[in-house]
Amino acid sequence: MPKLIDVTELILRDAHQSLMATRMAMEDMVPACEDIDKAGYWSVECWGGATFDSCIRFLNEDPWERLRTFRKLLPNSRLQMLLRGQNLLGYRHYEDGVVDRFVENAAENGMDVFRVFDALNDVRNVRRSIKAVKRAGKHAQGTICYTVSPLHTITGYVELAEQLVELGCQSICLKDMAALLKPQPAYDIVKAIKQACGEETRVHVHVHSTTGVTLVSLMKAIEAGADCVDTAISSLSLGPGHNPTESLVEMLEGTGYETKLDKACLNRIKLHFAKIRPRYAQFLSNITGVETDIFDSQIPGGMISNMESQLKQQGAGDKLTEVLLEVPRVRKDAGYPPLVTPSSQIVGTQAVFNVMMGRYKVLTGEFADLMLGYYGTCLGTRNQQIVDLAAKQSKKDPINGRPADLLKPEWEELRSQALALKGCDGSDEDVLTYAMFPQVAEKFFVARHEGPKNLGKDPAKAAPAPAAAPANGGKKPDSNSGPVLVPITYEVKVDGKAHKVTVAPA
Amino acid sequence: MPKLIDVTELILRDAHQSLMATRMAMEDMVPACEDIDKAGYWSVECWGGATFDSCIRFLNEDPWERLRTFRKLLPNSRLQMLLRGQNLLGYRHYEDGVVDRFVENAAENGMDVFRVFDALNDVRNVRRSIKAVKRAGKHAQGTICYTVSPLHTITGYVELAEQLVELGCQSICLKDMAALLKPQPAYDIVKAIKQACGEETRVHVHVHSTTGVTLVSLMKAIEAGADCVDTAISSLSLGPGHNPTESLVEMLEGTGYETKLDKACLNRIKLHFAKIRPRYAQFLSNITGVETDIFDSQIPGGMISNMESQLKQQGAGDKLTEVLLEVPRVRKDAGYPPLVTPSSQIVGTQAVFNVMMGRYKVLTGEFADLMLGYYGTCLGTRNQQIVDLAAKQSKKDPINGRPADLLKPEWEELRSQALALKGCDGSDEDVLTYAMFPQVAEKFFVARHEGPKNLGKDPAKAAPAPAAAPANGGKKPDSNSGPVLVPITYEVKVDGKAHKVTVAPA
Repeated sequence: MPKLIDVTELILRDAHQSLMATRMAMEDMVPACEDIDKAGYWSVECWGGATFDSCIRFLNEDPWERLRTFRKLLPNSRLQMLLRGQNLLGYRHYEDGVVDRFVENAAENGMDVFRVFDALNDVRNVRRSIKAVKRAGKHAQGTICYTVSPLHTITGYVELAEQLVELGCQSICLKDMAALLKPQPAYDIVKAIKQACGEETRVHVHVHSTTGVTLVSLMKAIEAGADCVDTAISSLSLGPGHNPTESLVEMLEGTGYETKLDKACLNRIKLHFAKIRPRYAQFLSNITGVETDIFDSQIPGGMISNMESQLKQQGAGDKLTEVLLEVPRVRKDAGYPPLVTPSSQIVGTQAVFNVMMGRYKVLTGEFADLMLGYYGTCLGTRNQQIVDLAAKQSKKDPINGRPADLLKPEWEELRSQALALKGCDGSDEDVLTYAMFPQVAEKFFVARHEGPKNLGKDPAKAAPAPAAAPANGGKKPDSNSGPVLVPITYEVKVDGKAHKVTVAPA
Repeated sequence: MPKLIDVTELILRDAHQSLMATRMAMEDMVPACEDIDKAGYWSVECWGGATFDSCIRFLNEDPWERLRTFRKLLPNSRLQMLLRGQNLLGYRHYEDGVVDRFVENAAENGMDVFRVFDALNDVRNVRRSIKAVKRAGKHAQGTICYTVSPLHTITGYVELAEQLVELGCQSICLKDMAALLKPQPAYDIVKAIKQACGEETRVHVHVHSTTGVTLVSLMKAIEAGADCVDTAISSLSLGPGHNPTESLVEMLEGTGYETKLDKACLNRIKLHFAKIRPRYAQFLSNITGVETDIFDSQIPGGMISNMESQLKQQGAGDKLTEVLLEVPRVRKDAGYPPLVTPSSQIVGTQAVFNVMMGRYKVLTGEFADLMLGYYGTCLGTRNQQIVDLAAKQSKKDPINGRPADLLKPEWEELRSQALALKGCDGSDEDVLTYAMFPQVAEKFFVARHEGPKNLGKDPAKAAPAPAAAPANGGKKPDSNSGPVLVPITYEVKVDGKAHKVTVAPA
């Protein structure tokens, strides 16, 4: 009997987050839910990550309502979310009481599996939320953010896994945000975790496909004993997204491993999203091929685009190479954090500052906080000179404790602030929405009654996409390649008589 | 010490044949040759397949001159070509004397490695060319066309490999034209060939990437002992093309296998073709994602597009599903030929005829020939009823012998026909060009002095590409999504007075 390999489907969360800037409207997902529910997935990732932010910022959609809708439409599925530990779905640390309430409410609204991670792999930043998940009787999945550095070793990852298991996690996720996980380390890490934590410890593997090698890494992880792998249906896969679900199914044929996915369901899901995809052309990632430069620079693709646009805004687009060389130095000074939200932005922006204004002449507030321990602890020792500089500039002391320990209970204050807002319905969910993104929530509460906005456009009416972008790192041309908006001269016959007519936008 | 894995680079032949209809002009390849020559490839595929046809039909370029240029620009590389056995680079069987002369001339002009295949895997159709390659002192690579059917077994493929080795082939190529080769069969076939033919028998593996699983298949083939794998530089890879060279290199890190490719060279080659690619937007394949349907239908992607356009021309676009179901039946009746040029076209067109006019009411001439043995022998038994029908309709007898045995010496006649043409320079190469494509050659000889045409266009000036096609099997819309170029009549009111106004490009 082949061994059963479980699959987590990413189409409803990370697939569109990675490929179309998290813009997919709920109504474009609803028609596929029946097939997704029947296909035989171990879980369906559908919430968390950037979806919460995107719902209220761009889609005028209540994220809690989205969760309840998924719960209704996917009655037989484990719903899964991505949770940033003590950051929840926001960009700062929350006090423990808020963490508890967030998890409770997510569980009550239908969430089953909480994948909890911390950008720095600091276990202290995920402990509270993991406990809250367990208290709610739900599945707590502890996460290892995979990165490559002189200090990151298999032993280190295994120790992290052991700590997560000790915290009561029912499974461990090896999470590779930047497609850096090559086949051999995938095998070695999964094998070592199984050996250290016991064969019964579930190991899930999450990879992106940017570098083109990670389907092979999934194969090797499976050979090493991985229980579940993450994929996205083919019509919204590849590039900075994920490996195609259907390819995983086919790849395993005859290998001694198999999924129990229903190919007819997968085909219908594929066709649905193939139809939806062109409606979001304006948000689609430029990267359609593979990008293996990442292995050398260890800088994720999305981070390069960000830095490039920062540089261009300052008229220094030619400085990109210098900045790319500066990133590893800044990362080393910070103690080798994995580069993932928010550490990728913090390190990247500081590298830009270093190149533009001289090395560490100016520190961003966030980089100072990172150096002073306000995001937690990294594997490496921080450069003491920069720590001193950060303390001096920010007038803060370095800390060694858990960052959230510095926070005072804040629920009641958040609650009274939220309830004072027009349109807030007084529910815990609304307070949590406010807690995550105060300014955005304020606008959202006012506009909520207008109902969800679908940013997708009929491709026949939308401006055509730019001509075939190069496979590698190509950027969309700045010029509009749609209907020409410059003056055009036509020959026009009016009542049979020819005129030269020039037409320009009024 | 890691085992060295050799690599054949496809960028100069199959990559642009698969992704941009073989349209790349020589001048767009020349600047990359220095790096290709230095990168450390085992061989550089750069000639044969459809390039010969495309050179004289579309590019006004002498294919023999192209070969000599590559020889000059790649002095340290093995040049490799794809040869269709007794069909050479044309679409009919040639008499043995023509086969000998073609191979001799290719060798004299610089070719080193001849990958020789027959669409039906009929060894009798490759024997003569393999002998000619050996006589010229060059490397003869015998090819197994991989397909899936109830009759195709590992044992069968191994027997074929043994026959090719007996013919004196220095290496065996397992060639997967349609991306059907899954990891486990890749492992099993390579392993079995090595066991049967000896570890010293070189095995090369050629796969396309359409289904998304074949980089894993290459990994498994390497684990089974494959000596060399085919890839294409990343900026012209994936989709109906091939796996990215750079991803292969990275994938192997730490596995006990390694290539000796120079990453700095690969990077420069990548950047060059990333720049060239958008110039050929008009020819680029629509398929950018993966397409796993092929596993069920066993119908290669290109074949589906062909059938679709045949059906549309006859106003029967709605019959595609019926035709797709008819293909496996026709293939079975024909004895399960692999579906590759020309068998894919022959089987596909007959399936269209069956659906449009009733099953086998009308046979195409080519299908009748296939049924009567004029293309050689397949693994399966042909349906006798259809063989009888074919004999009756075509007034030909079925044959069992080698098709080329029926041909009389034809070199002298081809030579005198060619020499009679305006612009023919009287060389053996020109006679061979004429022999391959008589009508096209006639026009080419006349126009040759005008020099090569580059069909690439400055992307800034080219018409915009159609809006983001779906990843899966999407077809380019027939309508031009650029500015409207047909006359349009409006009713226009100027100062209250109505006019009929017709607008057309000036």
